[in-house]
Amino acid sequence: MSKLRVTVWGENIHEWKHESVRLHYPWGMHKCIADGLNEAEDIEAQTATLQEPEHGLTEEVLARTDVLTWWGHCAHAQVEDKIVARVQARVWEGMGLLALHSSHYSKIFKALMGSSCSLCWREAGELERVWVCNPGHPIAQGLGTYFEIPEEEMYGEPFGIPVPEEQIFISWFKGGEVFRSGCAWRRGNGKIFYFRPGHETYPTYHNANVKQVLKNAVRWARPAGSIWIDDAPNIPADKAPEPIEVRGGSVHDAHGKIA
Amino acid sequence: MSKLRVTVWGENIHEWKHESVRLHYPWGMHKCIADGLNEAEDIEAQTATLQEPEHGLTEEVLARTDVLTWWGHCAHAQVEDKIVARVQARVWEGMGLLALHSSHYSKIFKALMGSSCSLCWREAGELERVWVCNPGHPIAQGLGTYFEIPEEEMYGEPFGIPVPEEQIFISWFKGGEVFRSGCAWRRGNGKIFYFRPGHETYPTYHNANVKQVLKNAVRWARPAGSIWIDDAPNIPADKAPEPIEVRGGSVHDAHGKIA
Amino acid sequence: MSKLRVTVWGENIHEWKHESVRLHYPWGMHKCIADGLNEAEDIEAQTATLQEPEHGLTEEVLARTDVLTWWGHCAHAQVEDKIVARVQARVWEGMGLLALHSSHYSKIFKALMGSSCSLCWREAGELERVWVCNPGHPIAQGLGTYFEIPEEEMYGEPFGIPVPEEQIFISWFKGGEVFRSGCAWRRGNGKIFYFRPGHETYPTYHNANVKQVLKNAVRWARPAGSIWIDDAPNIPADKAPEPIEVRGGSVHDAHGKIA
Amino acid sequence: MSKLRVTVWGENIHEWKHESVRLHYPWGMHKCIADGLNEAEDIEAQTATLQEPEHGLTEEVLARTDVLTWWGHCAHAQVEDKIVARVQARVWEGMGLLALHSSHYSKIFKALMGSSCSLCWREAGELERVWVCNPGHPIAQGLGTYFEIPEEEMYGEPFGIPVPEEQIFISWFKGGEVFRSGCAWRRGNGKIFYFRPGHETYPTYHNANVKQVLKNAVRWARPAGSIWIDDAPNIPADKAPEPIEVRGGSVHDAHGKIA
Repeated sequence: MSKLRVTVWGENIHEWKHESVRLHYPWGMHKCIADGLNEAEDIEAQTATLQEPEHGLTEEVLARTDVLTWWGHCAHAQVEDKIVARVQARVWEGMGLLALHSSHYSKIFKALMGSSCSLCWREAGELERVWVCNPGHPIAQGLGTYFEIPEEEMYGEPFGIPVPEEQIFISWFKGGEVFRSGCAWRRGNGKIFYFRPGHETYPTYHNANVKQVLKNAVRWARPAGSIWIDDAPNIPADKAPEPIEVRGGSVHDAHGKIA
Repeated sequence: MSKLRVTVWGENIHEWKHESVRLHYPWGMHKCIADGLNEAEDIEAQTATLQEPEHGLTEEVLARTDVLTWWGHCAHAQVEDKIVARVQARVWEGMGLLALHSSHYSKIFKALMGSSCSLCWREAGELERVWVCNPGHPIAQGLGTYFEIPEEEMYGEPFGIPVPEEQIFISWFKGGEVFRSGCAWRRGNGKIFYFRPGHETYPTYHNANVKQVLKNAVRWARPAGSIWIDDAPNIPADKAPEPIEVRGGSVHDAHGKIA
Repeated sequence: MSKLRVTVWGENIHEWKHESVRLHYPWGMHKCIADGLNEAEDIEAQTATLQEPEHGLTEEVLARTDVLTWWGHCAHAQVEDKIVARVQARVWEGMGLLALHSSHYSKIFKALMGSSCSLCWREAGELERVWVCNPGHPIAQGLGTYFEIPEEEMYGEPFGIPVPEEQIFISWFKGGEVFRSGCAWRRGNGKIFYFRPGHETYPTYHNANVKQVLKNAVRWARPAGSIWIDDAPNIPADKAPEPIEVRGGSVHDAHGKIA
Repeated sequence: MSKLRVTVWGENIHEWKHESVRLHYPWGMHKCIADGLNEAEDIEAQTATLQEPEHGLTEEVLARTDVLTWWGHCAHAQVEDKIVARVQARVWEGMGLLALHSSHYSKIFKALMGSSCSLCWREAGELERVWVCNPGHPIAQGLGTYFEIPEEEMYGEPFGIPVPEEQIFISWFKGGEVFRSGCAWRRGNGKIFYFRPGHETYPTYHNANVKQVLKNAVRWARPAGSIWIDDAPNIPADKAPEPIEVRGGSVHDAHGKIA
């Protein structure tokens, strides 16, 4: 099997403006995430950022991306709608998508969910304990029954998401809240995984368990069948599987255009 | 229980441009749909159309709408994004939505689904037989095991939707195709029902079974609990359910703004 | 609307054997649960117990039960398979079912889920904080964003259930675990709600919020359409919706029996 | 990757009693299904039948089975409950299961679904056209937008199943019915696929497209992570992730047994 081609997308702003972030991610959060993935021999991760032309997500880049990971926070609005639509169409075809942490509010995640994606939050560097809901799940491999992140932002319920198709993780926070931290859905032919941890001012993406989850998740999100090209074909009466005769009126002309 | 307040939204274009449509709907498709709903004593349906200011969907109208039905076809692109966002937010709060026929491609339905919503189609006035998947379901009340529509457009699989949370109807077409004709989902606190029949050049909305389905479906989609106001509150450390101390850095200033 | 007819089923053993249980439930846990429900004017709750003939769940009792609540713990195995099958068939018809606390391991809940329904647990009288995942949901009415139960048994993930069709509550435990405390599914035409709290040695069913949840949940589980009678009819060729001719062999004789 | 180990289970009765079946399956239906799977280099299929000790499904056989396929019809009741429970537990661990055709009424499928699994039916050797609902799905690889089986038994809606977690196929029948022909669910850590075609008196398992579906489906159902051993551990207070003190009464003695 050829290597899994991952593109790690980063908003790439906090790292340069805030010392508290640069401290943990001197080469950018995206670089740290990609490095973690590249520890695996079967994964080949490259990066793309907001500041690049087309945010680094050209047709060519997406065409050779099996799984895209997304981290954004303060600049969701700066992502061009044209690029969001392009990524969404590629997910429908079969590309996997990992939405990380504050990307719950990214344009692409909200567009795929169709819901508010809201939550409550607190930035207090508190303990997060991530519990595994299915110990046999591909995304939970190599973890114990739970793992801890000593300092994390809190995200709490209610989380405004469609009912998850798979529930992989739920988090316990020291301050008293809970959160659906690992959830999976499919849209079209693509698999989507939301993973909660990853606040910019803590070294979360250096955490061995978090790195393990990301490796597991990109493997899980890998396209498994073939591409589904979006299409809405007209099947004229003479091409119907069963013989039929055309009846009734139409607002379309003989070429299928609305008159 | 007070009457169920339904707003029937219509694109309201074919009726005036195409004799083949006006023939069946001389006062507009939306008027016919609303009349059908108003046959029921517990339902109070009014109409709104594309051409009205704010497409007839002002904040005030939506605030007093329990369930919105939507029919559009040739002018999906003319619906303002601002109004789509307003309707979507109202669905998250709890308003029900019925997407009818070609509204599979409406901005609001696509925004709620997050998927392509594509399908294949044929306009040949062929027999559609609508099968009931759960005879006890509220939306299937008063129907037999199936009902027929003598002349309808064909919609065929694959239908590019997220997996339905409830499958109420599946259609058989004379020309040989099948389609998931009645599907339900929830987004936020709102219920969504897609119902396939309703092509503009056939008298579908005069069909007794179709009228029954619409009455059943608006009752089913009625908000059942309370409103869910979208919100993403910060829970400061001193308001946490459990006592915690703040640790770590932040990109936010003391007022919660990004520095 | 006529009153909602609820049958509260109780295993009814701990109350008579253990002082620590009788202390809180001198007339039995089932009596306390029924009393709580009967506070509501629209609900009429009666009780049934393991010790009664047919466990109090005769055909007649079930026929006039809209929603059945179930609490069992140490005597799951004593429930007759015949009665379990009867209850299950009634759920398929449309009767609602609430499985309470240790009933995660009851025969009826396991039969409806098809999964192990396992979990981890600890009996330490610790704080449980029950978070609401959809504040507008009918089952969450009248609660805040969360409610607390000062002393409860802990149930922790992984919970061996099929993916919930609706996630209403998730619990946080003082000792560090989380649990999907309020989950909904449908089987056939019946709605099923699992609700975690309710350990026998604590006064949980006297808790105002727990009583509110139970009232909300039986209302939510009320049959909403008509009954779905289980059936597997043969549709002979001359009764097919479309004309067909019989072809091929058969292992059935002319009466439909296997030869 | 090592070969996928499939066990093809057959009821193995019709073949010896009915000439109309033996005609198509002179060595048994299970042998034909296994032969089809063994055409693939990555699959190693063996058979097991009702008549063998423990129905051929010993602990050892199941332990080295990645995916089990099941075909039964007239002897569902003869399958021992002990063996059904063993298979079910193995599915929870992660073994895949394919339930074929009349196995909708097998003990194992009903036990995993928790619903009636009823349907309507007609044995008339009519055309079945199987439509693909997601062209990119692993189970749909190598098929067109649909495929036809010239002679099949009809199964029609309503199909008494829990809402499918994935809808892969829907069938159109010449006589006018529709059916959810390819549906997927998970129970515990195991994947389950129901596939409708496969009536005993027609040569369905010789059909190239059907053989392709079965190959695809066993690959899809392959366990993807690790085994999930069913367990319900007590986590004593001194092993809790967070420090707690035990409070309240208990019906358990110091050894965790009910007193």
